[in-house]
Amino acid sequence: MTHPDFRVPPGQTIRLADYDPGFTGQFSEKKEAKEQLKQDLEELRALQDVFYAQDSYALLIILQAPDAAGKDGVVKHVMSGVNPQGCQVYSFKKPSNEELDHDFLWRCMIRLPERGRFGIFNRSYYEEVLVVRVHPGILAGQKLPPACKGPDVWQNRFEDINNFEKYLTRNGIVILKFFLHLSKEEQKERFLARLDEPEKNWKFSSADAQERGYWDQYQAAYEDCFNHTSTEWAPWHIIPADHKWFTRTTIANIIVEKLKSLDLAYPVVDGAQQQELAAARTALLSE
Amino acid sequence: MTHPDFRVPPGQTIRLADYDPGFTGQFSEKKEAKEQLKQDLEELRALQDVFYAQDSYALLIILQAPDAAGKDGVVKHVMSGVNPQGCQVYSFKKPSNEELDHDFLWRCMIRLPERGRFGIFNRSYYEEVLVVRVHPGILAGQKLPPACKGPDVWQNRFEDINNFEKYLTRNGIVILKFFLHLSKEEQKERFLARLDEPEKNWKFSSADAQERGYWDQYQAAYEDCFNHTSTEWAPWHIIPADHKWFTRTTIANIIVEKLKSLDLAYPVVDGAQQQELAAARTALLSE
Repeated sequence: MTHPDFRVPPGQTIRLADYDPGFTGQFSEKKEAKEQLKQDLEELRALQDVFYAQDSYALLIILQAPDAAGKDGVVKHVMSGVNPQGCQVYSFKKPSNEELDHDFLWRCMIRLPERGRFGIFNRSYYEEVLVVRVHPGILAGQKLPPACKGPDVWQNRFEDINNFEKYLTRNGIVILKFFLHLSKEEQKERFLARLDEPEKNWKFSSADAQERGYWDQYQAAYEDCFNHTSTEWAPWHIIPADHKWFTRTTIANIIVEKLKSLDLAYPVVDGAQQQELAAARTALLSE
Repeated sequence: MTHPDFRVPPGQTIRLADYDPGFTGQFSEKKEAKEQLKQDLEELRALQDVFYAQDSYALLIILQAPDAAGKDGVVKHVMSGVNPQGCQVYSFKKPSNEELDHDFLWRCMIRLPERGRFGIFNRSYYEEVLVVRVHPGILAGQKLPPACKGPDVWQNRFEDINNFEKYLTRNGIVILKFFLHLSKEEQKERFLARLDEPEKNWKFSSADAQERGYWDQYQAAYEDCFNHTSTEWAPWHIIPADHKWFTRTTIANIIVEKLKSLDLAYPVVDGAQQQELAAARTALLSE
């Protein structure tokens, strides 16, 4: 591990190969990590309550990863304790025809979290510089004017994404971006488990297995993406993903620490409102 | 008139006072302008048909103006001949609570035109650097975190808007921005007409008349806005608006010229598709 806080340092160039997917940090065993996760989740519930009441910030969590890296598990195990009224999860699959008729950010923009809410993007607009880059046929098939598909398209998309995220941050939307960094060996084990265990069969898709054939191209696309879109206002975190318990504990902790860094507070009731409350109490008691 | 093509030159600083709201250009009388408008509208209909069939670009037309400058009339008289299946108009009024719970571009983003369509924004996200700037209480009342309301908020919004429009242009959305430049005297005449003529009464709003009290502040806000957001990819046009017939003719002409500058063409049917067409013909004839 080159970066103990898991961040891709903005302005620097990293190599994905320098990050160890099997890293487990300070934990000597799974049990310790689970204990830490439990504490963080309690804190997360309390923080979300204030976050929702204050109704000022929104939190956008972006998850990107190879198949079987554990995105769904992160959503399930980190967010299960949170009040779903303040938490919205969107999984972005293959774009619909309606979505393809719009600019590429559109389908994500319309699902941005409202103030006071957590919004989780299970995959996101980053697919436009990942799967679309690995499979040039996808871009070729899009109905963009030819001039919009030139050789500078990736550089332009990186710039547009950075500007978009800067704009969001300026408008109270806090962004946390996580890449679940899985090794090719561990993906093989997890795919085999999906084939071997009947209750995991539904998770297996032969399309996922096909994508595995593009492993190196994906790694290159991820690396280039992180080197261009890890910014001061929305840095990427590369989270070791060969041990699910470590992935979940680490992500929960980063979310908690981020929320604690904000000026969260329950709304203060002013003098006039206090008088209203007092009047309401009197009216209720005199019924 | 300092700029015969009505554009605010990107990178230059203009004074709104240098633009004449009563300008009527090459037309010596209203009838001539109406003749020109008629020709342009015929061309517009034909161009829209190709635009829709090609299904590649989208056209975003933004209209900003003081009250009674003729925005509604432009929509009605320039777009009435156009196939409404390919034309969507949105009027942005006071934001709803749902809209205020999102970032300021959100309510406009979600209404961006699809490929092949014209989208008309009757007012737009530019209100966020116009009415919101003239009335500081609006920003103060928004639920943004305090750090997002600092003294650099207008500069940041200009930058965010420019970046957003650059992104749209890169994704095939062509942007035309029109400011209907009305004189204070002509606005008075039009307000009086709304009061005097019963069939125009419904158009009068005392709120509009109140906004007239902020005329100078609005002019300053418009001027600063145009000087910061007229870009190579999305320049502002300042359209003289004291004569409605000139406003409409001029805007129609600019739209037509813009469409003619694009590589519009009906989709070409390739060899395989031609075979399908031939087979379909044979099947129909043999019924």
